[in-house]
Parts: sequence; structure tokens; C-alpha cells
Amino acid sequence: MLGAIETGGTKIVCAVGDDALNIIERVSFPTTTPDETFEHIFNFFDQYDELKAIGIGSFGPIDVNKESDTYGYITSTPKLAWQDTDFLGRMKARYDIPMGWTTDVNAAALGEYELGAAQGTNSCVYITVGTGIGGGAVVDGKPLEGYGHPELGHMLVRLHPEDTAFDGFCPFHGTCLEGVAAGPAIEQRYGKSGQELAEEAHVWELEAFYLAQAIVNITLTLSPERIVLGGGVMKQRQIFRFLKKAFKEQLNDYVATPPLDEYLVPPALEDNAGITGGLLLAKRALQS
Amino acid sequence: MLGAIETGGTKIVCAVGDDALNIIERVSFPTTTPDETFEHIFNFFDQYDELKAIGIGSFGPIDVNKESDTYGYITSTPKLAWQDTDFLGRMKARYDIPMGWTTDVNAAALGEYELGAAQGTNSCVYITVGTGIGGGAVVDGKPLEGYGHPELGHMLVRLHPEDTAFDGFCPFHGTCLEGVAAGPAIEQRYGKSGQELAEEAHVWELEAFYLAQAIVNITLTLSPERIVLGGGVMKQRQIFRFLKKAFKEQLNDYVATPPLDEYLVPPALEDNAGITGGLLLAKRALQS
Repeated sequence: MLGAIETGGTKIVCAVGDDALNIIERVSFPTTTPDETFEHIFNFFDQYDELKAIGIGSFGPIDVNKESDTYGYITSTPKLAWQDTDFLGRMKARYDIPMGWTTDVNAAALGEYELGAAQGTNSCVYITVGTGIGGGAVVDGKPLEGYGHPELGHMLVRLHPEDTAFDGFCPFHGTCLEGVAAGPAIEQRYGKSGQELAEEAHVWELEAFYLAQAIVNITLTLSPERIVLGGGVMKQRQIFRFLKKAFKEQLNDYVATPPLDEYLVPPALEDNAGITGGLLLAKRALQS
Repeated sequence: MLGAIETGGTKIVCAVGDDALNIIERVSFPTTTPDETFEHIFNFFDQYDELKAIGIGSFGPIDVNKESDTYGYITSTPKLAWQDTDFLGRMKARYDIPMGWTTDVNAAALGEYELGAAQGTNSCVYITVGTGIGGGAVVDGKPLEGYGHPELGHMLVRLHPEDTAFDGFCPFHGTCLEGVAAGPAIEQRYGKSGQELAEEAHVWELEAFYLAQAIVNITLTLSPERIVLGGGVMKQRQIFRFLKKAFKEQLNDYVATPPLDEYLVPPALEDNAGITGGLLLAKRALQS
């Protein structure tokens, strides 16, 4: 039996599954303090004597450098109670079994790669557009990590000529991708939620203008085989049409990509992408 | 004995080396037509009976997808005589030995990774800023490839508020990174060459503003351990000082990076980066 944890800013999901990554049991609870949260996590996994490994996809930034003293920590997160939390260390102290560790979005990319919308590829990117924008990647079948891990949401983008009055809401960069294209940017700009604006084509054209820029730059950097776009904002599926048009215009056919209907796709696993990736991380930790 | 080829827009370098990647013999000749060029290449390698493998780093775009019918081709290059040239196929027809194949800048990244400025890391990016801007990467010890390969020079960047009158010179994107920051952009903007402008701080501040944006986006995507910046324009070493300052301002400490003096560095192998990477590609092709 394999275990998986997906920690998000608002909730934490724990699950156990089998070797084929089928989810057998799944619970979730709100993200509160570390002490309270670990109690929930331990209560869940303590039930399973047969647990062989656990894979963890965590909100970031986290330390993924195995040679670092703070490997396995959640580091400089804006969620203050969680700053400098030795997440992996606390898990290891409770369960002496192999564990995998990466970001929530890298885990989601891995889930979509293994069993979801990027199945059959060798490399993919997963982007979530919601209250923030996050992104992870799989390269050559593995979650992409280097000195740290991808933080695609904060890429710098050009402002649209008709959007120059908007300052963006990112406290670090103002008008980075997240600052101009995450859910709160849409709400601040128009005073309405995305759902209320569903019929307003110009809203989604602007959204697509920004997402397309990031995707052009990701294409020119990673050249993935597929890009999976999920999260609350992307539930407005009409964005995909505008996105493909804007991407084509901005890349201007400079490099070849897969056909856009195969290249830019919604997730297949939806809310289970991260936890499925977590189970795969566990499986790989066990094998290595 | 190992062979290596680095094809560039103006010249082609061929070399042979030993297993430790020492260059034993090295020749170069102008890039003319494919027929003439292959004659030069064959004349060089025909001398070496002991040749066990060849690694090739080619100007792009090239096809790196092993499952593609045009794997090993130079594809949609603006160098018209070379469009749709089966480079690898012509080499294989002459020499029935293992061959490696990637872009010139991926090969240079690999050379700097193995024996140059990125030695000791696990991932690096190589960017060349000259008459164009190109970039390649090594992830987890391997040249980065996916559906295609990195084309970092064409990333979309924000115009500097004092540079909005400049249209950029990229025929595909106007003001992409290459369009505003490669050598010809400097010359078109000021009517002088980079060397003549060496003392003009504002020129290099602007150059650094653009390069820093690309490097912020690369950092947020690949999170490499080191970024090596070479090419003719980067020989103006004063750029590095402006670049580190601009990078720090633009990233605004959102994610951790190595200390900037270790993160953003000039090449160590200079003109031999690509050919050294080629020898390593050959060595790996032989081993696999």
C-alpha cells in the first residue's frame, strides 16, 4: 500500500492507494497550524500498517535540494505558520519508510503524465490558474528540479496595451503573470468574479493574452510535449479557444509544437492529479 | 578516438579528441552549401580510422525527436540552403558508428557542464549573446530536449520604458529578447558597435534589463544551478555587474538562487564549449 499527501494553502489531502495508483481511501482537512495538521495526517496514516512508502507534493517554496541542511522543509512561504517547517523530517520521524518529496504542482504534473492528460508523453507542464498561478513540470519522466523548483506563476509578462492602468496584485512583482492573470486580478480589474464574466469575450481574450505569453516562454525554454492547464479559472473552458489563438500569434510559428488541440489541454484527473502524482512518487521512492 | 562537429551559421568546426575530452585536432571552415560542407567534414574525419563515435551540435531549429521521420534534420532554418537537410543521415551514410545529435547551444551547455564553468553542478543553462541570442540547457546531466529543443533567444520580454521607440529586429517577433538585445539591436539603436559603446553605462544597463528578464523567467522555469553567458556581446564583461543588479531587482528575492557571483558566470571553455560538448555526446553515444 502506498500513501500520498497533497498540501495546499487551504486544504490538505491524504490518500492511500495500490501499486497501480488507484486511490483506495482519500481524506481532506483544512490547512491550519503545522501541529494540528500533522495530528490529522498521523491519525490518517496510522490506520494503515501495510504502508510501504509516502509521496508528498507540497505548496512552496520548498527545499528540494538533497544536499541542503533544510531539504524537505517548507521555506519562505507567505503562510507564516508554515515558514521553515521541516515537513519531511516530521513525517520521517513518525514513519520509517521511503518518501518522495516535491511541489504540489510538480506532483500534479506527474499525475497527469502518468495517468492523465499527458499520458504517453515524455515531458509535460502542469499549470494551475486559480487564486494564484502555479506550475510544475515533468522532464524525461521525472519532476523537474534543479537548484530549486519551477515557480511558473511569477514569470514576467508584457502588459496588454489596453491594460496598462492595472497595477497587478502580486506583492513581489506587481504585474507578473500571477499578478495580472490569477483569479483575484480578474476580480480586481472588473469588480466581478470570473463566473459572472463568463460571456464577456474581452475578459478571456485578455486572460489568454497573458497565459499565452507564459506558454510561449515555457515552450521556448522546456519544449514540453504537452501543457495541462487546470485550476478554478481554467474551468471557464472558453479560455482555451482564445489561448490557442493568442499562442499562435505570439509564437508566430517560430518553432514547431504539437497540434494545439493536443498541446494545450485541460486536466484529466482534475482534483486527483496531485494525489495521483504523490502515489507515483511513493512508488518510485520504494523502488529506488 | 571521438569526433565532434559544431555547425554554426558562419563556420563549422570539426575535431577529434580522446576519452577525457581533450581536443587532439581541430579544424574550421566557412558554412557554405551542404554539399561543399559535407566534403570538408568527410575529408577531415576520413583521416581517422580509429574514430569510434561522433557528437554533433548543430544550429537550429533541428529535429531532435527520435520517433520523427525527420530526426536528425536541420529543419526550418533561415539559412535557406540548409533547410530540410538530413545532417545526421548524411553522416551515418558515411560513417557507420554511434552518433549524438543536439543543438549547438545544448552542446555548449554540455561542454561547460562537464569541463567548464558549470562543472560540479547537475543542471545549467548556456546563453550566447552575439549576432543572435541562443540558449541551451543541461538538466540532470543531460541536454534538455522535449518535443523540440530550447530556443531561449526568442523569449518575449517587456520593453524598457525608455526604449519603446525601438521596434526590435527579429523578423518573427520584433521585440523578443533577440530582437532587442542581440548585437544588431545595440548597433541599430545607437548607430555604433558594442565595442565603441563600452564606456556608456546606460547601454549596458538597458542590455542587462532585457537579459535579466529572460534569466528571471528561466530561473522560475528551470531553476538551474548555474547560468553561463557567452558570445561576442558578453565579452563586454561590465554587463555582468548590471545584470546581477537587474536580476535581483526583477526577481525580488521571490525564490532562492545560488549566490549571484556563482549563478551568472562567463564561460570557461570559450570557443571550445560546443566542441567539448560534442565529444561528450560522442562518448555517451558510444556507451549507450
